[in-house]
Amino acid sequence: MSETTTIRPGDVLLPEGARRPRTDAQLTFVGVTRSTPETQQSAPKNIGEARNRRRPGTIEVAPEFRQGLAGLARYSHIVVLGFLHEARRDLIQITRPGAEAPTGVFALRSPVRPNPISLSVVRLLSVDIERGLVEVDAIDLLDGTPIVDIKPYRPGVDAVPDAVVP
Amino acid sequence: MSETTTIRPGDVLLPEGARRPRTDAQLTFVGVTRSTPETQQSAPKNIGEARNRRRPGTIEVAPEFRQGLAGLARYSHIVVLGFLHEARRDLIQITRPGAEAPTGVFALRSPVRPNPISLSVVRLLSVDIERGLVEVDAIDLLDGTPIVDIKPYRPGVDAVPDAVVP
Repeated sequence: MSETTTIRPGDVLLPEGARRPRTDAQLTFVGVTRSTPETQQSAPKNIGEARNRRRPGTIEVAPEFRQGLAGLARYSHIVVLGFLHEARRDLIQITRPGAEAPTGVFALRSPVRPNPISLSVVRLLSVDIERGLVEVDAIDLLDGTPIVDIKPYRPGVDAVPDAVVP
Repeated sequence: MSETTTIRPGDVLLPEGARRPRTDAQLTFVGVTRSTPETQQSAPKNIGEARNRRRPGTIEVAPEFRQGLAGLARYSHIVVLGFLHEARRDLIQITRPGAEAPTGVFALRSPVRPNPISLSVVRLLSVDIERGLVEVDAIDLLDGTPIVDIKPYRPGVDAVPDAVVP
């Protein structure tokens, strides 16, 4: 997530009037990520890398939202939406090292985007409703990353194994 | 999405102090959904139903964010995150009609949740960067639903075809 701090040659900023987040809607943090403390440089760049490194994590759900976990343990996988509160929100195109042309942030999974919401599909290990603890097999979020939503993963609508990537 | 307006017997409200969204973070709407105008009652309940009904849709990206679409057309599928601005945010458990016990909102794909962010995996039909138009094969969002993010779908990390559901 080193893109979060530095603008590199070829990166494209949003127009001046659009660089500050608007307040079209408000988010409530419902929990926080607990994972191996690491820097943005050493942390896994994506959930695939987190899985390969077998880097487990726990989501600590705040007391007032814990009842929302009832029934979750029946699923094998969940979708975790985090809020990457340290990521830049003022870039609209990023030039990857070695790339010829910049790529739009909506065509990247980079944390850098107008709304830095992360999406991780993870395997559920355990759910402790009373303590608000959701253990998952791997997580690509920094320790302390706020969580905004948890959803059950439904392969019937969420899995497209033959989707094409460049 | 009829849950958005009515509290039914067995539904559980958040504790009184947690019923209003906090302002832990702010969202910028980057676009808007264009789909067949329908009511919440007649609209598809989920993306699976939208696909079966072959209900196409278009995301209109606002002018300042259109450069973010560069490179997206190389993917066959995308993830669309919408903001269900009309959904209730003060319920933490919902009792489905006929169900014995309430289910936590984090174990449901209902729009009713503390942060009503929708997640739809959809097939990309076309991308017109200049006009900011992203055509998709099916969409379960009401016409006019704000969009907060578009991400490329990567089956290597996003597809878990053998995930277990109850």
